[in-house]
Amino acid sequence: MSRLEAFSDGVFAIAITLLVLDLAVPTETDLRHGSLAAALARQWPSYFAYLVSFLIIGIIWVNHHGLCTFAQSADRAVLFANLFLLLAVSILPFPTRLLAEYLTAEGADAHTAAAVYSGTMAVMGAAFTLLFLAITRDAALTPRPVPKPAIQAALRRFGVGGIVYLALIGLAYVNAIATLAVHGLLAIYYCFDQLAPARSAARD
Amino acid sequence: MSRLEAFSDGVFAIAITLLVLDLAVPTETDLRHGSLAAALARQWPSYFAYLVSFLIIGIIWVNHHGLCTFAQSADRAVLFANLFLLLAVSILPFPTRLLAEYLTAEGADAHTAAAVYSGTMAVMGAAFTLLFLAITRDAALTPRPVPKPAIQAALRRFGVGGIVYLALIGLAYVNAIATLAVHGLLAIYYCFDQLAPARSAARD
Amino acid sequence: MSRLEAFSDGVFAIAITLLVLDLAVPTETDLRHGSLAAALARQWPSYFAYLVSFLIIGIIWVNHHGLCTFAQSADRAVLFANLFLLLAVSILPFPTRLLAEYLTAEGADAHTAAAVYSGTMAVMGAAFTLLFLAITRDAALTPRPVPKPAIQAALRRFGVGGIVYLALIGLAYVNAIATLAVHGLLAIYYCFDQLAPARSAARD
Amino acid sequence: MSRLEAFSDGVFAIAITLLVLDLAVPTETDLRHGSLAAALARQWPSYFAYLVSFLIIGIIWVNHHGLCTFAQSADRAVLFANLFLLLAVSILPFPTRLLAEYLTAEGADAHTAAAVYSGTMAVMGAAFTLLFLAITRDAALTPRPVPKPAIQAALRRFGVGGIVYLALIGLAYVNAIATLAVHGLLAIYYCFDQLAPARSAARD
Repeated sequence: MSRLEAFSDGVFAIAITLLVLDLAVPTETDLRHGSLAAALARQWPSYFAYLVSFLIIGIIWVNHHGLCTFAQSADRAVLFANLFLLLAVSILPFPTRLLAEYLTAEGADAHTAAAVYSGTMAVMGAAFTLLFLAITRDAALTPRPVPKPAIQAALRRFGVGGIVYLALIGLAYVNAIATLAVHGLLAIYYCFDQLAPARSAARD
Repeated sequence: MSRLEAFSDGVFAIAITLLVLDLAVPTETDLRHGSLAAALARQWPSYFAYLVSFLIIGIIWVNHHGLCTFAQSADRAVLFANLFLLLAVSILPFPTRLLAEYLTAEGADAHTAAAVYSGTMAVMGAAFTLLFLAITRDAALTPRPVPKPAIQAALRRFGVGGIVYLALIGLAYVNAIATLAVHGLLAIYYCFDQLAPARSAARD
Repeated sequence: MSRLEAFSDGVFAIAITLLVLDLAVPTETDLRHGSLAAALARQWPSYFAYLVSFLIIGIIWVNHHGLCTFAQSADRAVLFANLFLLLAVSILPFPTRLLAEYLTAEGADAHTAAAVYSGTMAVMGAAFTLLFLAITRDAALTPRPVPKPAIQAALRRFGVGGIVYLALIGLAYVNAIATLAVHGLLAIYYCFDQLAPARSAARD
Repeated sequence: MSRLEAFSDGVFAIAITLLVLDLAVPTETDLRHGSLAAALARQWPSYFAYLVSFLIIGIIWVNHHGLCTFAQSADRAVLFANLFLLLAVSILPFPTRLLAEYLTAEGADAHTAAAVYSGTMAVMGAAFTLLFLAITRDAALTPRPVPKPAIQAALRRFGVGGIVYLALIGLAYVNAIATLAVHGLLAIYYCFDQLAPARSAARD
């Protein structure tokens, strides 16, 4: 389990740090219309998308951390569910860059970018749920078996998350900026430990 | 051994995460011919190559993980065999980018790109075999000596893998897209633990 | 605590290494006016900003290291204060690139870039203070409670640091080069262990 | 010591993996003069510089690994000597890119690029020597004191290395390609454990 955690921490740490490469220094062309301060201010979609994605990767890391305390060993199913989660995490800089670039574009393009962003989050939520199932399905992997009701409560919360992410794909086609804002608010909401009940149940 | 694992995990984690830098956000020029959605759809070779390479690095990490459970210490031969494997892993984003760029090119260029990709995989397979030999050659490095027949079985499997990779260099000159698809299928095949027999033999 | 340290070390290590991507190899256009040696010499703002930022991330890592020896476990408040610090650390390559690009620009743009750089440092100092407070506020997190006077002494030093960073935002509007130089000197000053008194008090 | 190793491993792993970003996929413009295969072949300076730099970072990691087995704890002097070594390691992708770009340039520019490359290696050698001195100077940091003659033998070898690196700065002004080749040969020479005598002496 410790190498799975080390590898995952590496991917989380790199993905969260690579986001900074999407913040572009304004070029001379960008400054034709005014000062550097104005050019930086015009880049607000980049900062906004950066912050939301940073927060999301940070939250997922914290929750991954919480989830791993359940498990004392990892089998192949856990390794691959984890790999699927890492796929979603490590691809996140791409939709972040995409949304930063097209957030204020006119017409359908902003909607497309926001839908891709929401879709990535939906996949990430699904991957996290799969990892949760892979770890809790086998009593041999958890130091103490997690009781059924606690698992069901956690799954219910994951299910609500899934519906919310699907709704955010819909919202993307209405308003891209609002979509990004809701993703930010969702990340802040997830700061509250959604795994807390399952974990305390496992301790009793 | 723990620092070798930590360093290797770092390289695996970075190489797998750097792949995302190859997914380019469509520029204004790309959008001249249509919408962002259409421009993203035209980028399918990038996503395809990204997925296959991500899967391959992930599988190698899992198998590296399995291989390291054999060894309790590392000598210089193991360190350098491991460094050779890391060379092949960390260079992978380059042939990935190359293949993504030229997968649908006309004429010989798609074949060249696919052959470079297959060649990198052949080198990676050879490096993994060398690391296996470096670890199992010396009974002092393994907590329990791995029995000869188990080593021979593993080597036979590595040999088949080598022949397959060479065949994929040939396939590259026939069809680049099929070559990438077979690499993806191979990675999925390797999900099944190829080291399992050797490891269970070591346990008895 | 060990995973928080591992994740943080990852982010520190990546941010400090990504700085090198901002050192651009002179292009043919840059060489129109003379030799490669001359073109490299003209890039001194990049090397200067690189060195100062490298030193700053290094110092913060060393002090983070010192701070973590206080704590034996991490709760959610510590995790999020740490995440806030990592946000400031991992964004640092952006103001570094910005300042390198505009350090010798004419007019207000150099001042803007230097002010953004100083502002990032002020945020980083605030984040470090928050992390210190999150760790020392709860006796359950520290193996031995840190005595009040030692905490107050550390906070007084953090307060002075905060005032200095605000002053450097002001200095940015006077002289951008001097601002970067003072940041470099500050980093060297911080090499002296500012947490030493609090730590030795915790040992008594 | 374990966090110093973890942080250093992170920087080594990232620097060695970032080298791949310097391998550029040939663009359409590059293909105007022929096939992709020909354009890739023309890039041989990039592959050559990549291989030498990969080998050098790999060797330094192995030797850093060897050096750290001496020490059981790290004081501030060790931390900063280590940080200085990491500075030299993490900047290496820049001279690598520079040399790859200008290796076959006409006139003084190839010499300049090779001299910058050799200079970086000289700094790296000096930083490694400093770290060795910082660790062995204090018997409290090493589980068993390293005997004086062993330290002197190691320093003599570091001294020879320093002279060689200075000679390579000179060679840079004669022939850039030969300079890179000698760096590659040197790295292979360093594969032989230069710390072996000191370590075995410490064991007796």
